[in-house]
Amino acid sequence: MMNKLAFVLILAMGCVPVTFASPDTETSRTDDLVVRVAEIEVFPEWLDAYLAAARTVGAESVAKEPGVVCIFPMRQKENPCSIRIVEIYRDEAAYKAHLQTPHFRAYKEGTPHMIKSLKLVPMSPLDAEGMKLIFRKNTVERN
Amino acid sequence: MMNKLAFVLILAMGCVPVTFASPDTETSRTDDLVVRVAEIEVFPEWLDAYLAAARTVGAESVAKEPGVVCIFPMRQKENPCSIRIVEIYRDEAAYKAHLQTPHFRAYKEGTPHMIKSLKLVPMSPLDAEGMKLIFRKNTVERN
Repeated sequence: MMNKLAFVLILAMGCVPVTFASPDTETSRTDDLVVRVAEIEVFPEWLDAYLAAARTVGAESVAKEPGVVCIFPMRQKENPCSIRIVEIYRDEAAYKAHLQTPHFRAYKEGTPHMIKSLKLVPMSPLDAEGMKLIFRKNTVERN
Repeated sequence: MMNKLAFVLILAMGCVPVTFASPDTETSRTDDLVVRVAEIEVFPEWLDAYLAAARTVGAESVAKEPGVVCIFPMRQKENPCSIRIVEIYRDEAAYKAHLQTPHFRAYKEGTPHMIKSLKLVPMSPLDAEGMKLIFRKNTVERN
């Protein structure tokens, strides 16, 4: 069982630990994963406001949506206005559902004036083809 | 307890699930994390060989080095020779130790002719400053 502290901290990070289930039960789910990197340049004067909005939508998405496997936001040390967010959704349906959530819509409607450029780059995990395994949320703490 | 299957599958992915320990015990470890994105362009004729080498070094690093928190390799769907690897090390010492391991040295010595360009981009997790928490490996399976 995950304890409450671990859960809160995972939310703070915006990324839920993941692991895989038995390959015997389902064999095609990894192929369904939607993985992408959002490359976002933010106007310096809006940076703090944008970071707050990004943290909120990341944490809420991971907390409220079973289909959001991971949202891991980072920024470049040498260009702090350059944000990179690794996003992993369970499948295309989970991604489409995410776009309709109140927290994502609030982010999408509240941030356009903060963003200088935005590029969504579709990615493939390097081992997805070979794994043929389920990729699922796993949030157990172990000390 | 993590079972053997979960462990093997985590290795296959090259990324160990992570969670955080109590904020009461240690408060500064997150600041020590070394996070970066390796942006690698590979010559098309060497792509398969490079992917095999990258998978191997990712899996071995996560398996053998306690200081390697996560290595998550991806490639761009629209440019399959464009590789992006998110790497998270526990601290600078863990990163330096990684550079001396036999598996990393084999990768480093075996792949230069395959690589057209390589850029290592230092990153900060968006919430690192606010968390002040330990970021540690956690590999428990839960069904």
